[in-house]
Amino acid sequence: MYDGAVQDLIDELGRLPGIGPKSAQRIAFHLLSSDASDVARLAETITTVKEKVRFCTVCGNVAEAELCRVCADPRRGEDQICVVEEPKDVVAIERTREFHGKYHVLGGAIDPMNGVGPDDLRIRELLTRLGDGKVQEVIIATDPNIEGEATATYLTRMLAPIGITVSRLASGLPVGGDLEYADEVTLGRAFEGRRTVS
Amino acid sequence: MYDGAVQDLIDELGRLPGIGPKSAQRIAFHLLSSDASDVARLAETITTVKEKVRFCTVCGNVAEAELCRVCADPRRGEDQICVVEEPKDVVAIERTREFHGKYHVLGGAIDPMNGVGPDDLRIRELLTRLGDGKVQEVIIATDPNIEGEATATYLTRMLAPIGITVSRLASGLPVGGDLEYADEVTLGRAFEGRRTVS
Repeated sequence: MYDGAVQDLIDELGRLPGIGPKSAQRIAFHLLSSDASDVARLAETITTVKEKVRFCTVCGNVAEAELCRVCADPRRGEDQICVVEEPKDVVAIERTREFHGKYHVLGGAIDPMNGVGPDDLRIRELLTRLGDGKVQEVIIATDPNIEGEATATYLTRMLAPIGITVSRLASGLPVGGDLEYADEVTLGRAFEGRRTVS
Repeated sequence: MYDGAVQDLIDELGRLPGIGPKSAQRIAFHLLSSDASDVARLAETITTVKEKVRFCTVCGNVAEAELCRVCADPRRGEDQICVVEEPKDVVAIERTREFHGKYHVLGGAIDPMNGVGPDDLRIRELLTRLGDGKVQEVIIATDPNIEGEATATYLTRMLAPIGITVSRLASGLPVGGDLEYADEVTLGRAFEGRRTVS
């Protein structure tokens, strides 16, 4: 419906996840009425991210060098590896400041419905990292949904014979939430995982 | 939280309308895992739109030349001008195929709360266009909300002494809504049922 360049932009924006045709149009007109320098900067950051960003050769996290920020940090412990699905999960855990070991990013979760099997994840690379005997504990922090649980179960079975401690993040009630709004599964897990406090 | 380029991209995406931090992160990681050629094409369309697209010198619609597609079309009637707020409203009305005249894009609506007065809109340019005596009817198609109605009222009063027929799109458009979200049939009916207001 629009002249060439505007329609091209709306089409391209509409391909991004979570952006429908109306949002794409809104963003396109926002860009049209923005300062040329702001728009140039957006285009540049998009180009730069593909040029500069690669994935850490050790853990699979996003990185701008051979190693990511965590793997390159000598203060991080070598004895614990926290296994996550995606780089954004690394960021979420870093924000807690609770973990001082290293990470391993699988690049997804086992999801047979969408054709993702164990071989599509960075599980072989995880086994290689465990080979040097430095790692004492693998903490599985996959998402608490069907795919994440399946991946956790798979990893647990695979790591059992190696004799390394394998742990899984606790499931339970979200802090600050209301007990009455918790779903049955979560509340059930919170019961199972209850701890003696006195 | 992320290394330079990824965070820069998330920040830039987060400045777009309707994109929160989580969506920005999701889009950033989508781009990271997309083909380099797709990402380059997105960056290019963003740059191109600012280079190529300007505004029609007659009606204020988006254009890639001196005149927009409608103003450059010799088959479009010179006797009717449909006044809209934004270029996206032109697209919405074109989709109905009910109107065969020309447009005038105001570039917004009178909105004192946000400091937009009549002088900030392309009203002077509209008066200039009416000067040659060819135009028989001005159809006011501003949004059916408070700002749009205020703009319509202002235009009606201003155009009354000129002796040109001024009409307003019929009700049938849901009050409080946005013109661009109306479906074609409703918008088409509103065109058919427009009433002379002065």
